[in-house]
Amino acid sequence: MTSTHGFSKGLQFHTQASLIFINSPTMAEASIPPVENLTISDTVAEAEFSQRVLIRSILGRSDGGAGLAGKTLKVGGWVKKGREQGKGSFAFLELNDGSCPANLQLIIYSDVAPLGQFTPTGTCLHVEGVLQMPPEDKQGKQSIELKVLKVLDVGAVDPAKYPLPKTRLTLEFLRDYVHLRPRTNTIAAIARIRNALAYATHTFFQKHGFLYVHTPIITTSDCEGAGEMFQVTTLINEAEKIEKELIKSPPPTQEDVELAKNVVKEKGEIVAKLKSDKAGKPVITAAVAELTKAKEALSKVEERFKLKPGIPKKEDGKVDYGQDFFARQAFLTVSGQLQVETFACALSSVYTFGPTFRAEHSHTSRHLAEFWMVEPEIAFADIEDDMKCAEAYVRFLCQWLLDNCLDDMEFMVEKFDKNAIKRLQMVASTNFVRLSYTEAVTILEEAVAKGHKFENKVEWGIDLASEHEKYLTETKFESPVIVYNYPKGIKAFYMKVNADNKTVAAMDVLVPKVGELIGGSQREENYEVIKERILEMGLPLEPYEWYLDLRRYGTVKHSGFGLGFERMILFATGIDNIRDVIPFPRYPGRADL
Amino acid sequence: MTSTHGFSKGLQFHTQASLIFINSPTMAEASIPPVENLTISDTVAEAEFSQRVLIRSILGRSDGGAGLAGKTLKVGGWVKKGREQGKGSFAFLELNDGSCPANLQLIIYSDVAPLGQFTPTGTCLHVEGVLQMPPEDKQGKQSIELKVLKVLDVGAVDPAKYPLPKTRLTLEFLRDYVHLRPRTNTIAAIARIRNALAYATHTFFQKHGFLYVHTPIITTSDCEGAGEMFQVTTLINEAEKIEKELIKSPPPTQEDVELAKNVVKEKGEIVAKLKSDKAGKPVITAAVAELTKAKEALSKVEERFKLKPGIPKKEDGKVDYGQDFFARQAFLTVSGQLQVETFACALSSVYTFGPTFRAEHSHTSRHLAEFWMVEPEIAFADIEDDMKCAEAYVRFLCQWLLDNCLDDMEFMVEKFDKNAIKRLQMVASTNFVRLSYTEAVTILEEAVAKGHKFENKVEWGIDLASEHEKYLTETKFESPVIVYNYPKGIKAFYMKVNADNKTVAAMDVLVPKVGELIGGSQREENYEVIKERILEMGLPLEPYEWYLDLRRYGTVKHSGFGLGFERMILFATGIDNIRDVIPFPRYPGRADL
Repeated sequence: MTSTHGFSKGLQFHTQASLIFINSPTMAEASIPPVENLTISDTVAEAEFSQRVLIRSILGRSDGGAGLAGKTLKVGGWVKKGREQGKGSFAFLELNDGSCPANLQLIIYSDVAPLGQFTPTGTCLHVEGVLQMPPEDKQGKQSIELKVLKVLDVGAVDPAKYPLPKTRLTLEFLRDYVHLRPRTNTIAAIARIRNALAYATHTFFQKHGFLYVHTPIITTSDCEGAGEMFQVTTLINEAEKIEKELIKSPPPTQEDVELAKNVVKEKGEIVAKLKSDKAGKPVITAAVAELTKAKEALSKVEERFKLKPGIPKKEDGKVDYGQDFFARQAFLTVSGQLQVETFACALSSVYTFGPTFRAEHSHTSRHLAEFWMVEPEIAFADIEDDMKCAEAYVRFLCQWLLDNCLDDMEFMVEKFDKNAIKRLQMVASTNFVRLSYTEAVTILEEAVAKGHKFENKVEWGIDLASEHEKYLTETKFESPVIVYNYPKGIKAFYMKVNADNKTVAAMDVLVPKVGELIGGSQREENYEVIKERILEMGLPLEPYEWYLDLRRYGTVKHSGFGLGFERMILFATGIDNIRDVIPFPRYPGRADL
Repeated sequence: MTSTHGFSKGLQFHTQASLIFINSPTMAEASIPPVENLTISDTVAEAEFSQRVLIRSILGRSDGGAGLAGKTLKVGGWVKKGREQGKGSFAFLELNDGSCPANLQLIIYSDVAPLGQFTPTGTCLHVEGVLQMPPEDKQGKQSIELKVLKVLDVGAVDPAKYPLPKTRLTLEFLRDYVHLRPRTNTIAAIARIRNALAYATHTFFQKHGFLYVHTPIITTSDCEGAGEMFQVTTLINEAEKIEKELIKSPPPTQEDVELAKNVVKEKGEIVAKLKSDKAGKPVITAAVAELTKAKEALSKVEERFKLKPGIPKKEDGKVDYGQDFFARQAFLTVSGQLQVETFACALSSVYTFGPTFRAEHSHTSRHLAEFWMVEPEIAFADIEDDMKCAEAYVRFLCQWLLDNCLDDMEFMVEKFDKNAIKRLQMVASTNFVRLSYTEAVTILEEAVAKGHKFENKVEWGIDLASEHEKYLTETKFESPVIVYNYPKGIKAFYMKVNADNKTVAAMDVLVPKVGELIGGSQREENYEVIKERILEMGLPLEPYEWYLDLRRYGTVKHSGFGLGFERMILFATGIDNIRDVIPFPRYPGRADL
């Protein structure tokens, strides 16, 4: 490994990022030095927006922080391990602040404060101290330690009650403590890797002139006419309010309505009579006022008479979505693709990166009800350009992790997947194999002929199963593989029909460990062809009229793809269950917090 | 203005961004040159993932592209204006590809292709051509033009049918064409500004060592026990499925159930009899099989008997959310704050940037049902640190737009708000005024005493109204203002109670044009105090147990804030209606696409 003291180039990245501004220093800029410069001064050093230095800014230096010996500064974090020594005269505390996987060793003497409160795992400490070299015989383990001069704050822990007192717990156990699990080494490392991949994603697309577009979360379009969708509604709440209302004061009966009508009638007749009798103005005015009151009472009664418990229904018995918040049925998006196409067909190179949803009752380690997708869309681009972009993006992500998260990756290698770093290196440095679907099927058929067993039958026309994808990328090529030109029958209506009229210009990127990482296609830009495809698939045209407009007016050749962000994290970390790589996993029966 | 030919330093940003990697060239990196270097070659130049150069990479150069005269390259985009000239011997076309507000002028001669198809506004063109200097008498307007050599693709438009044939349309009109409005100059400029602000946000926080955390969209916690929330459910869909089912085959009656029970009883008796008669094994096996069948039939009938139309209810008449997807009631998030605190209390400096939702029936120009929020959360930070961070962030955003989007900002100044750039400059270069809530109220009372009229009464204890905020930031100080230490009675339970026990450590950032841009606070980290506050506000403790755990175990002083992303865009652009600064606006009665 190229890291120093188990450390990645994370800091270097931050320092380099500040170069962006080197040619244009401004007021705002000048006041925001980069992390490293800012956090260490000769006396008490502080990060600008919190009263501490990042532990990474000490231990992440090429000298492991040794050059900072003698500096006085503040740090804050949580105790990973604490032990009293020297017959209780001092304690060693391993402090972690989440800025890196490494802990800073604190040494605190009993004349500073009673030691017992500091040693339990999970204790929060905010201290001021002086950095010093540890005694020579211990320098192998620690390049620098902090001698505590003053304890600023303690957040105590009762070890008998703390749910995570041990340092190693199963990931499954931790899912019951989503609010505390970021305090574990594993979930923290995954969080840093996830953060790095997100920023790398934005950086890659921005560098290439793509605009980030926020596609809607609440949608009234169903992307592929398929997939279970969550409904977004206020109807149930409204119905419950009405039901409560009706219990508090029961609804009027038909009789009540008739009664109110009669009152109006009577009061009306009185007014008419007074008028024909030419009664005095004050008398008539009073009678009219009574009539108005009676009319108001009637309309109230009539309105309440119409109130019915339950979801509002139309006469045909169907739910009346006209009364829902958006005056129609609304869902959580399953993909931002169709919507982001509207921006590609105007601003050329765009991408979206946001949450997407599936209400599928899948209890597997690969499915979530809420997950994040990255979806670029490129005008004036065909399937070849699309594949180039997908390959460059995935390789960029892998290299970014090697450059910026090597310490976290080393942790993953040690604890979860000894091949995790090798896999990143391989993908970052390998040209992806490309083969057509037809070639892929031929290869699979050859494997079968040679005795390889697949659970799913192999023949032209099938959708490749996970086992087929893994065979191609892990066994046959031991490399990322892009399969393109799939049979049109198994793909979505919006994919560009090839000249053979049998296949569409679709492509999937397959990688070792997770199989399909990316799915994409050139989009059908011909109005007549795509209209035909929609009808062919038995879909109604009306909901797609806006999508057809993109082909009706100034149509453009364009392509795009989607990357499942959590899949990328599984691929990078070697973690097995997707529920552990998203901060707050949602799946059937569970949505904690 | 400091721009050249109305152009900002957008390109410079891209070039500089590539410096990040200058010290660590890698395989993946080496294959991805920055936009500018990549797109122009001596012959036909292409962006790597699309078959065209960005128009920005031509017109955005300091020489306005003049130095590229003689280069052959491909461009693609949409015609803004086209006119035939020279008795139909050639046409001028203003082409825009969304990469910048400026258009590239194309000149095309009738010997290349019939001209009539190219001139309608909205036509998509993909062409190859040679850059040339326009005739001297026209150089004032155009620094460079492209002489078309070859038309690669045309996406035609029938001007009689195209909904946006005119170049200037009202923003209100355009809301009925969300799928086409990105093709207008205004919506395109807003999209680029929005993109720039999003990337600036990530860059600011990453630079300062914050980790990006994806807080959940679907939540089972109600952040402040307030606010109308959208419900996320599969119950209505399930109910509709059941109702359809029941119509297709009507539900069994009680009689049907009894009948099925009797069959089971009979079959059981037969088996019993055969056994006691010591009948042959085959006979008994057959009878047992019949019994099993009857039992299965019974359980099916019983199950279908239980099916009821409508949303499933519990015995007390309340909706049975146990049968919903997450086995409990679920909502769309109104804020990621509480959840992101779980990460701050482990990883110290974090932020979330995602969609949030309010099911309020507000039909104002300031409210959306779906909008984006930026929410940083900082451990070991008090309200002072929080204010410092908020100020630095807002000033960074303003400076970023001046550095990277000046051309778009000049467009906004010309068309919408002559003060838009001045406002950015002022905020980027001004130290924000800070005053306590009590001081703010005193200032407002003085204004009233001097005859200033407010619609809302001014006295200590009120929540500042929009008019009060505007008075402070626009009239009194003509500067951004941070008001802090608000009365505890008008603020949320999680805010840190000050020593006076009357106020909480909350702060709002007020800016000209939009008023409140940011709201934040130090969080109450004391377990006993926050528990008391929850009870005091009449909230139940149970749903907050996880939140209390953060104070129970290793509690930490921490602070954070939220910035309404669309508000920031309104502030920057001078646009009046929030529906025009988000790609797909959602509000009561509307959720197009």
